[in-house]
Amino acid sequence: MAYYIGMNRKARLAYGFDEVALVPGQRTVNPDEVDITFQLEKNNFQIPIIASAMDGVVDAKFAIELSGLGGLAILNLEGVQTRYENPNEILDDIAKSTPERATKLLQKLYEPSVQPKLIQKRIEEIKKAGGVAGVSATPQKAEEYYNYAIESGVDVFVVQSTVATVRHISTAYKTLDLAAFCKNAKVPIIVGNSVTFEMALELMAAGPSALLIGIGPGAACTTRGVLGIGVPQVTATVDSAAARDLFFKQSGRYVPIITDGGMTSGGDICKAFASGADAVMIGSAFAKAKEAPGRGFHWGMATPHSNLPRGTRIEVGITSSLEQILFGPATLDNGTQNIVGAIRTCMGSVGAKNIKEFQMTELIIAPAIKTEGKLAQRTQHIGMGKN
Amino acid sequence: MAYYIGMNRKARLAYGFDEVALVPGQRTVNPDEVDITFQLEKNNFQIPIIASAMDGVVDAKFAIELSGLGGLAILNLEGVQTRYENPNEILDDIAKSTPERATKLLQKLYEPSVQPKLIQKRIEEIKKAGGVAGVSATPQKAEEYYNYAIESGVDVFVVQSTVATVRHISTAYKTLDLAAFCKNAKVPIIVGNSVTFEMALELMAAGPSALLIGIGPGAACTTRGVLGIGVPQVTATVDSAAARDLFFKQSGRYVPIITDGGMTSGGDICKAFASGADAVMIGSAFAKAKEAPGRGFHWGMATPHSNLPRGTRIEVGITSSLEQILFGPATLDNGTQNIVGAIRTCMGSVGAKNIKEFQMTELIIAPAIKTEGKLAQRTQHIGMGKN
Amino acid sequence: MAYYIGMNRKARLAYGFDEVALVPGQRTVNPDEVDITFQLEKNNFQIPIIASAMDGVVDAKFAIELSGLGGLAILNLEGVQTRYENPNEILDDIAKSTPERATKLLQKLYEPSVQPKLIQKRIEEIKKAGGVAGVSATPQKAEEYYNYAIESGVDVFVVQSTVATVRHISTAYKTLDLAAFCKNAKVPIIVGNSVTFEMALELMAAGPSALLIGIGPGAACTTRGVLGIGVPQVTATVDSAAARDLFFKQSGRYVPIITDGGMTSGGDICKAFASGADAVMIGSAFAKAKEAPGRGFHWGMATPHSNLPRGTRIEVGITSSLEQILFGPATLDNGTQNIVGAIRTCMGSVGAKNIKEFQMTELIIAPAIKTEGKLAQRTQHIGMGKN
Amino acid sequence: MAYYIGMNRKARLAYGFDEVALVPGQRTVNPDEVDITFQLEKNNFQIPIIASAMDGVVDAKFAIELSGLGGLAILNLEGVQTRYENPNEILDDIAKSTPERATKLLQKLYEPSVQPKLIQKRIEEIKKAGGVAGVSATPQKAEEYYNYAIESGVDVFVVQSTVATVRHISTAYKTLDLAAFCKNAKVPIIVGNSVTFEMALELMAAGPSALLIGIGPGAACTTRGVLGIGVPQVTATVDSAAARDLFFKQSGRYVPIITDGGMTSGGDICKAFASGADAVMIGSAFAKAKEAPGRGFHWGMATPHSNLPRGTRIEVGITSSLEQILFGPATLDNGTQNIVGAIRTCMGSVGAKNIKEFQMTELIIAPAIKTEGKLAQRTQHIGMGKN
Repeated sequence: MAYYIGMNRKARLAYGFDEVALVPGQRTVNPDEVDITFQLEKNNFQIPIIASAMDGVVDAKFAIELSGLGGLAILNLEGVQTRYENPNEILDDIAKSTPERATKLLQKLYEPSVQPKLIQKRIEEIKKAGGVAGVSATPQKAEEYYNYAIESGVDVFVVQSTVATVRHISTAYKTLDLAAFCKNAKVPIIVGNSVTFEMALELMAAGPSALLIGIGPGAACTTRGVLGIGVPQVTATVDSAAARDLFFKQSGRYVPIITDGGMTSGGDICKAFASGADAVMIGSAFAKAKEAPGRGFHWGMATPHSNLPRGTRIEVGITSSLEQILFGPATLDNGTQNIVGAIRTCMGSVGAKNIKEFQMTELIIAPAIKTEGKLAQRTQHIGMGKN
Repeated sequence: MAYYIGMNRKARLAYGFDEVALVPGQRTVNPDEVDITFQLEKNNFQIPIIASAMDGVVDAKFAIELSGLGGLAILNLEGVQTRYENPNEILDDIAKSTPERATKLLQKLYEPSVQPKLIQKRIEEIKKAGGVAGVSATPQKAEEYYNYAIESGVDVFVVQSTVATVRHISTAYKTLDLAAFCKNAKVPIIVGNSVTFEMALELMAAGPSALLIGIGPGAACTTRGVLGIGVPQVTATVDSAAARDLFFKQSGRYVPIITDGGMTSGGDICKAFASGADAVMIGSAFAKAKEAPGRGFHWGMATPHSNLPRGTRIEVGITSSLEQILFGPATLDNGTQNIVGAIRTCMGSVGAKNIKEFQMTELIIAPAIKTEGKLAQRTQHIGMGKN
Repeated sequence: MAYYIGMNRKARLAYGFDEVALVPGQRTVNPDEVDITFQLEKNNFQIPIIASAMDGVVDAKFAIELSGLGGLAILNLEGVQTRYENPNEILDDIAKSTPERATKLLQKLYEPSVQPKLIQKRIEEIKKAGGVAGVSATPQKAEEYYNYAIESGVDVFVVQSTVATVRHISTAYKTLDLAAFCKNAKVPIIVGNSVTFEMALELMAAGPSALLIGIGPGAACTTRGVLGIGVPQVTATVDSAAARDLFFKQSGRYVPIITDGGMTSGGDICKAFASGADAVMIGSAFAKAKEAPGRGFHWGMATPHSNLPRGTRIEVGITSSLEQILFGPATLDNGTQNIVGAIRTCMGSVGAKNIKEFQMTELIIAPAIKTEGKLAQRTQHIGMGKN
Repeated sequence: MAYYIGMNRKARLAYGFDEVALVPGQRTVNPDEVDITFQLEKNNFQIPIIASAMDGVVDAKFAIELSGLGGLAILNLEGVQTRYENPNEILDDIAKSTPERATKLLQKLYEPSVQPKLIQKRIEEIKKAGGVAGVSATPQKAEEYYNYAIESGVDVFVVQSTVATVRHISTAYKTLDLAAFCKNAKVPIIVGNSVTFEMALELMAAGPSALLIGIGPGAACTTRGVLGIGVPQVTATVDSAAARDLFFKQSGRYVPIITDGGMTSGGDICKAFASGADAVMIGSAFAKAKEAPGRGFHWGMATPHSNLPRGTRIEVGITSSLEQILFGPATLDNGTQNIVGAIRTCMGSVGAKNIKEFQMTELIIAPAIKTEGKLAQRTQHIGMGKN
């Protein structure tokens, strides 16, 4: 809904994960019997969870592991893995840096150029181990890197920038013709990021296999702080889902949407699906895995930006194996372990037998707690749970 | 009211205790002359307060004590009391655990099976001392445990799961036929938990004696964090009260609703009644009693869940006797002592002579304080009270 | 405005000081030339500020001082000043108590009975020094104490309870006939507290000279926490002002309303006037004065309640003289000093020449800051002020 | 939109920077190709950023530096620079003061009179170095100081008070005839501060070259705390922009509006433009520059007020050079460095080729994060950015 924020000026009210909750329905389902698979063109994934193209999250080893567990990992083609033959010492340096020096160090370590042979080497490492190889590049580099990647047998290619549009205006450089790129591609192309109904419709018309949803997700995100740009994820997902459904009606082609960013717990992930997502893309939750290359740290692709860094190195710590994060058993009670169990249990509680039914769960606007003190009090009281 | 949270998608706005306050009316009543009894079928309770089926709150001794003070306690049939002949050392271990190890320890300590003979022993302990024996089981175990319980002279039986529905879909196991269960029961059956108008209507039609209201109460609750599910308690209670009133008009049967969870002070409890509750179910406030088995700690029935714990062990400390918590005198000024006095004083101030009149109190939406600093400032200023 | 908070149930949305701000108008006025006097029947006060009947705020000495500065202080007839011949040692004891023991100590120290001769002594002390003597009693004691007070030459008598109504139901004791009491009174009677339009209208019809507005002001107040009762002060004042204006139209009698409680700074006080107040009643801001009897502490009349204390002893510290708190110069920049200067400057900025014009200032709903971090950041940025 | 806040009383709901975010559009633009110049009568500035007339921010040296970088600095004609021949030792004293003594010290240090010859000296220092000389005075001193300033070759003159109105009522002193003052001025006159549509229209009719927008910006500002006055900046800017556009339609004269205060990051600045600003005025962000005279501290012009200080000395620290704050490279990731880069990148992302197009960006109401804990969690997750 749009409200006047001043004379002659209206703004829609948007919602994030903190503002909503799911309402249980009239029936429940045995969680073990729900279907959570995700279909991307001819690829069927056992779990609808994709790992973000962050250097602290995905390297070849992590991608292989996640493939084995039924998911998909995206390797950043413009990060340390493709700039350094041996990125391990680089990752060690980053992990050892003090917080004060981290941004500057990242800027310096990302100065060396990307090496095409390393693009190919990383993909081959994944393929050799039987993994699904997903990689990402920015629009400027997409065509060049796509060619290297396809030669090495890549399975999924992601074209990702903060704001994806079909029309980019520049006189200084040639811009990517997204429609042509998608049309000629031999593997599924995922494009992002988008947040509005109109952007989603226009991007879908360009022909990608899926869309990433999320710009500056979460009110405190760096993009929102530095640039002021951002649409909370519930509204962004709901709007993009509406575009997907309209596009399907008009074209007969179903372009899945993947909610990307802003989810910090199983509950947030469940809300993303209930808002209309077909899959989710996860970063920091995976950075906590033993298998993640970040050594308990992670940072965004915009953090090392030489002139305007938008992000920061964060210490998340290492909590458990990737398998435990995905399938439990959870030894933490904050919703960061057994994510797949949380999705299944939630679907059972709201009576959804598959993701399509999950997308139709009733949402309620449920104001979040206002003060820390109250929060503590409440946390104290809660957990009197039932089985 | 429902608002658009995105294109083609609406969500109702729900309210919790923090968002509302009670408005005094045109008359006041002498607090000593208000009627606060609660009727459950043929049982008349002097106070409308029920203790939650949590292992840190209710054991036989506590149940006997609360019976004597006019209330009802529910013993968890799937907790330490029925898994261990002598639960005292188990409770000692839990109390001595470090916070880090508590969830894991609970998971381990809840591995031994429930012993039918202990179900019977606990109930007999309560009955022998003249107490009212209330017990709870999950739907999967309800029929089996009911038989043991009824043999031992149980007075009230609770069937409780996170989300109660009449229709549960599973091919792997047989589901409880709630209507048949209620019909055949020889004692009052309380069923929960429910939060919506439709759920309440459908559950009431199955024939229980009362309904527990509350799923993921409080915005910070574990169920909301882990699963994303939850409806704030004021709206959940108002909606369920509407269902109760409609069901009464149509069937002539009045099924009381019991607001369960999320109340941290006398004020919250008063708001639950004003929202339409016939009684309230309390956990952590009772865990602070000397008589509670938790030794100053408490935890939920879902905390020891082996794969997806939803809850946490909390240290609440021991503040006073159960009698003082219920009837004062309060030596604390935060609304956690003399709960019955608070209910009576509030009813006096809003002019309600009994719970039915209390349910009609005017509610106002009164935004909570936003920052800790402000909170402190305000607390500082307040308390300039009057008699 | 009323919103659905659930099925068939509406609640009005109420506003507190934190939620609103004043909007400057089309003209400004020289602050030195605004009229801020307050008229109570035949008494004209130079400043529209009344000190609360709290034992940490008002004793005879304080009342004399505030009279001299143009205001009115209310002495609590049921506090330490009338229970003890020499309250100084009692006040010392309270100030020396640890926070943990304070409520219990207060309960004990308030056990001795009120002595009629001390009621008279205190009033005479004030009168002898040329001060205006205002005193307060609860409805139960009003008639008895009024007689002692009037003999000693009292000027203003306040009848104050948490919730004031014309109709109180009790079979156990005789209730005060407020209309008869007001009719027979030889001095102005102030009655409180009230918060709604209907309460104000009914109370005004009983004949008091002024009305105190405020029950559980502030979302974090003890009454709201313990009993759940409370209406934020902006809405309570606006509604009561509407009642005052309607009553004036119908009866020709103008009954001033005094906003009581919840104001922590000059800004809050200005908002009370802009909401419609004729005067304000202040507690903690005055407890910080050197002249206040509380030795840097204060507490409410309900704090020593033997069974259900609603309030707490708070340390506010001693910041300056009463004169400096009222008239400056402020050496603190948080709005707690030079309160009269703040009122004048604000009236100048919104172009109000007297309190009646001040009551018509445009209010805006201006959401408060949400997080401490933001608060700090903002505080940092602000103060780049102009003269 | 206006809402009832009580009976017969409505208040508009206003929005600040924290409540809104920018929505990306259907096209993007190369950030290097956007036009961000600001036109003030015949003066064309390369960047639309003006430094506040604060003593901790602007002295002659700073003004020269900012001129060289394309911006405009305003020197406070009633601060230390014009009261002291050598303000350096005064600034040292202020920087060395303890927080407790700072307000009192400032009050004392601002007692000496402003010296006309120093007004002229400071302006001449700026002009001699080739800088653009902007200065500010309060309405009471505007005519007198204008004459000194114009003799010394001043370029821009600012008349600034907390609330600017065309009509000021006083019998004690002569008030400024703003229309006559503007008409006779030989240089652009900037007037402020204003916040409403009506104020802006009336002030524009008096003939200034630009208007400063902002009174008590930010919910925590001192003016809002001390006086209760304040309109959040998004609504104030939107309303003033509507006045500017209407005034332009009616008179053919375009009076730029400059949003002043409350912006703590590049994101807030971008939101000011998207709300309709033609330029922004910045204080604390510049106080962090090596070139700022405040030695890492800053304070407002109302802080040294002898009777009612409204502001406080804040330590902001020295982070980098002014050039780095404006043009990067940013080594901090919180939006306080490379402000111009943030403006350009944001314009690129929303597809705005110049400030006029930037003013038409879609705004969304995006609730801010509620709790610190959540904030930390989110911050942790975010920054997984894209390039």
